[in-house]
Amino acid sequence: MTASAPQRLEIALIGLGSMGFGMANSLVRAGFAVRGCDLRPEIVASARAGGIDAGFDAATAALGADAVVTVVVNAAQTETVLFDGGVVGAIKPDGVIISCATMSPGDAKRLAAKAEAAGISYLDSPISGGAARAAEGALTVLTSGPAAIFAKARPVLDAMAETLYHLGDEIGVAAAFKMVNQLLAGVHIAAACEALAFAKKLNLDLAKVYEVISRSAGSSWMFQNRGAHVIAGDYAPRSAVEIFVKDLGIVEDIARAERFPAPLAGTALQLFLMTASAGMGRDDDASVARLYAKIAELDLPGGAVGP
Amino acid sequence: MTASAPQRLEIALIGLGSMGFGMANSLVRAGFAVRGCDLRPEIVASARAGGIDAGFDAATAALGADAVVTVVVNAAQTETVLFDGGVVGAIKPDGVIISCATMSPGDAKRLAAKAEAAGISYLDSPISGGAARAAEGALTVLTSGPAAIFAKARPVLDAMAETLYHLGDEIGVAAAFKMVNQLLAGVHIAAACEALAFAKKLNLDLAKVYEVISRSAGSSWMFQNRGAHVIAGDYAPRSAVEIFVKDLGIVEDIARAERFPAPLAGTALQLFLMTASAGMGRDDDASVARLYAKIAELDLPGGAVGP
Repeated sequence: MTASAPQRLEIALIGLGSMGFGMANSLVRAGFAVRGCDLRPEIVASARAGGIDAGFDAATAALGADAVVTVVVNAAQTETVLFDGGVVGAIKPDGVIISCATMSPGDAKRLAAKAEAAGISYLDSPISGGAARAAEGALTVLTSGPAAIFAKARPVLDAMAETLYHLGDEIGVAAAFKMVNQLLAGVHIAAACEALAFAKKLNLDLAKVYEVISRSAGSSWMFQNRGAHVIAGDYAPRSAVEIFVKDLGIVEDIARAERFPAPLAGTALQLFLMTASAGMGRDDDASVARLYAKIAELDLPGGAVGP
Repeated sequence: MTASAPQRLEIALIGLGSMGFGMANSLVRAGFAVRGCDLRPEIVASARAGGIDAGFDAATAALGADAVVTVVVNAAQTETVLFDGGVVGAIKPDGVIISCATMSPGDAKRLAAKAEAAGISYLDSPISGGAARAAEGALTVLTSGPAAIFAKARPVLDAMAETLYHLGDEIGVAAAFKMVNQLLAGVHIAAACEALAFAKKLNLDLAKVYEVISRSAGSSWMFQNRGAHVIAGDYAPRSAVEIFVKDLGIVEDIARAERFPAPLAGTALQLFLMTASAGMGRDDDASVARLYAKIAELDLPGGAVGP
């Protein structure tokens, strides 16, 4: 599998949520033959309506594929798809698994070892950037694994990434970088929500707060991105509260195992848990703002929770 | 006091720390006659060496001034300078006090009312951006107060600001915006330190982490700014730990008074307090990373604390 291969490369894209769907489109635009797979019929229908050849089971999607890109929720789903779902037996013997789900470095190492035992190459390959950048082929893609495997995967990665890193030969390094990113991303989302709710409590004009903070030292990527959802009162899920319950949970699991204190990540995790507990687990992760609104009886845009 | 006034406007700049010194230079460059005041002889000497006409007491600096810019630590120092230090009796009767210290909206209102009772105009005028931007005349300046007072102060503000906001006629509104910014800034500094120490615990290359996160969704203004201090192991104070003990203390005071929960700001405050308690109160606020290093015995650059 190289950029100059005479045949059109075949890619299985497993997991067609907002990230996976955008990545599938980027791969199609780059000229790959893409077969999509997702367990959720409504997601498959939506992907098909969006021009993706979807509806295969995992093994069928992977049959003879040069690369299998997994964009599922976590390590457990990745493991199920690859080893129970038959991907490892279906992919081309010299194909490569590009594993994009956020997981702990330990899980990444374990899954890579299982794939290697089955004779299949595996690249630790978490992603950052959100659905809009996924659709543009403009993700930040972090990878680690042997250089030869990175080289094999490179044409596929280039089609999905604006910024592509190979962070080392050791599986798990990219996963660790992603966990550091998620620690910050989760704290910043919750902080944006705390700050905007505080601003509302002080009777400030939220749109003006959003504008001023975006140009001040208090700004963050997440404040600008998720703050816009809060200002608009739009909690349709781009990325759900449950994703950060999961990701900050992994951060705290690793931190506890390493005997490392991470009080800000721990506090943010509790805020996402409270938001999920209050019935908003499947809503946009900016719903932490609605948790504050519910507690403090603030009249945020779209702030009412429930029917 | 207008831009077309025939005489050179006279400005007293009270508080010549890294922010005030930079602002004084911006005002000199803009053609104002600037007289500087600071209680600390070493700061006065340094300002004089930097070309600022400094060394006056507050009342002398303010005598006949068109504007007095106060850039001291907090509301208490601002009040002492203005009312015990004789500024209010010395400034031109139609002069304006431009109050830049971070303080609660309630304190801003109280000081403005005292100035008004003495017949002097007062503008609530907190600043954001750090010493480098202060020196360039490129601060973000937030103001609130009656439009006529804003208009009077405008030439002075324009000389210091790249981005200038007039956020309303009511004193205290700008102070409240600044508190929202400080909530985020404080949480983001502490989160950057938590994340970089966590990355070190995971044996990641910190310079690479800094580069990758700066281009990912986990980035923030503070991660990019203070993260560079951590990577360089440089804890010479641009802004000291004690500043965020103060500012997040004000945030938590307001939040408690308003019966508003702010758990992330509260956790960050505890981290700054721990860092101050461990002997780093006067060091750069990125020293929170050295607190984590001390607790977890991490070998951060410049991470050792104390002699």
